[in-house]
Amino acid sequence: MNPGLLEALTVVATAAWAMTGALAAGRYRMDWIGVFVVASVTALGGGSIRDVLLDHHPLYWVANPWILAVTTAAAILAMATAGFVERMKHAYIAIDAIGLVVVTIIGCDIARQMGHPPVIAVLAGVITGCGGGIIRDVLCNQVPLLFSSEIYAGASIVTGATYVSGLALGLNVEATALVAIGVGLALRLLAVWRKWGLPVFAYTGNWR
Amino acid sequence: MNPGLLEALTVVATAAWAMTGALAAGRYRMDWIGVFVVASVTALGGGSIRDVLLDHHPLYWVANPWILAVTTAAAILAMATAGFVERMKHAYIAIDAIGLVVVTIIGCDIARQMGHPPVIAVLAGVITGCGGGIIRDVLCNQVPLLFSSEIYAGASIVTGATYVSGLALGLNVEATALVAIGVGLALRLLAVWRKWGLPVFAYTGNWR
Amino acid sequence: MNPGLLEALTVVATAAWAMTGALAAGRYRMDWIGVFVVASVTALGGGSIRDVLLDHHPLYWVANPWILAVTTAAAILAMATAGFVERMKHAYIAIDAIGLVVVTIIGCDIARQMGHPPVIAVLAGVITGCGGGIIRDVLCNQVPLLFSSEIYAGASIVTGATYVSGLALGLNVEATALVAIGVGLALRLLAVWRKWGLPVFAYTGNWR
Repeated sequence: MNPGLLEALTVVATAAWAMTGALAAGRYRMDWIGVFVVASVTALGGGSIRDVLLDHHPLYWVANPWILAVTTAAAILAMATAGFVERMKHAYIAIDAIGLVVVTIIGCDIARQMGHPPVIAVLAGVITGCGGGIIRDVLCNQVPLLFSSEIYAGASIVTGATYVSGLALGLNVEATALVAIGVGLALRLLAVWRKWGLPVFAYTGNWR
Repeated sequence: MNPGLLEALTVVATAAWAMTGALAAGRYRMDWIGVFVVASVTALGGGSIRDVLLDHHPLYWVANPWILAVTTAAAILAMATAGFVERMKHAYIAIDAIGLVVVTIIGCDIARQMGHPPVIAVLAGVITGCGGGIIRDVLCNQVPLLFSSEIYAGASIVTGATYVSGLALGLNVEATALVAIGVGLALRLLAVWRKWGLPVFAYTGNWR
Repeated sequence: MNPGLLEALTVVATAAWAMTGALAAGRYRMDWIGVFVVASVTALGGGSIRDVLLDHHPLYWVANPWILAVTTAAAILAMATAGFVERMKHAYIAIDAIGLVVVTIIGCDIARQMGHPPVIAVLAGVITGCGGGIIRDVLCNQVPLLFSSEIYAGASIVTGATYVSGLALGLNVEATALVAIGVGLALRLLAVWRKWGLPVFAYTGNWR
């Protein structure tokens, strides 16, 4: 895809994730520094986990510290507009979904450029897309939401699998990326709209 | 030890740990993807933490993605047989204990091959054996179980210390590994059977 | 600063942090091994996170395993003196604050020596100072305390920013370090004494 567009979408997604982090911090009455930390970790954590696991240095925010200004500004924006969040819910979900699929593609690309096999490329994409939300929920002392919400990680997996499969078949990179983004985005938005979910595994035994 | 046997035992242990992860996920009514994630992270997290801390790349699952099929299959098996788990409790505990001590030995070996001193080798073994369970409990929003259960981390420490001490004394590698595995396994199983535990530190003050 | 004094202060701070970790473990009735683990992770976790994120190997405790004897001894001391902790509260807070600012300076120095820009140097210092406490609270299943307590991370940020700014202006390294330590320490101790806090962001909406 057009690298400029990809980067612009990534920045938008980073900001959207930082805002969800700030709201989660606000629910625990954190102070401003806590809000900035949780916002930044939510926005940048997925890519950082991927890079640490794949030994891909320097991390994005280490090489591009200006992104921290984006996450901080997004956190301030979230605090300033918290009263309107419910009304902006649909915009939020759409931006977050765009970020999820775009960032998944970027994560796949990084693993592919490092020479990893397709399975690891898909995983790298999913870790990039979902890791930040998991850290956010762990820091805020909750069972990670994406493990039980409407096809969130699932949309990331479908996006990555579509993209990596297309490339393995020798298809055009840009067209494949667009199709993968479209499919993932449609799946996520339809799932939110129709309240689709994956089957749930409920274990009530008293042993583990 | 016979490398083939070691690897076979590792795969069995990885599967057992993935099953405990799946059951923990089920207690929180996670969806299937959440179950697969928690199962895989439980099974592979200890070795991954060790490798990241020691800068030992690529991680095992990055170099051997087929292990992810094992953790996924184990998670499915756990979901399918959850109703029988209580009845299979003893088999579960025995497999988990075998995994704990075998994987501890493997972790020690990796640190030794990297040239680290004995203390770090033992620690690397213990991190490999116990790290996955700690991540599982953090993801499932619980205080890590192994910090208060029957000599779990303790059995890993005794295994690693026995193995590394034997090697430092110049004993035969295979014989030492067997003795260390036997001692650690006996300690863990006796502890479960006799409900042995370490002394507990209870602090009830209102300051930290 | 005098490297010997810096190292001595670091060891004192490491011990102090290990003691806070042990007390946190005691509140959850962990067994002795759990206490040692949480104490060590609290004391050494911040530097470890910094080193993993910046790819700075080997980690401090891997290269200097004797520090683990310090954290273990500190944990035993904390268990032995838990009954007196409330009375020693002021000494504890002072030692912890000294550790926070000293370790922040050390973290900044490591990032600077690796050639990272000033923003990353400050961040590296703050991660070193605050990371251990965050892991401690996550392991003990609490929302990290420092996100809502009296200017804890804030004092670390001010220390790091003062130090790195002074160096950027070409000031004498030792004098700058002393000023940064003095400013950060004064801020933290005044904040505890006067119960200063940063503004809190409270979000009570039911969406995130």
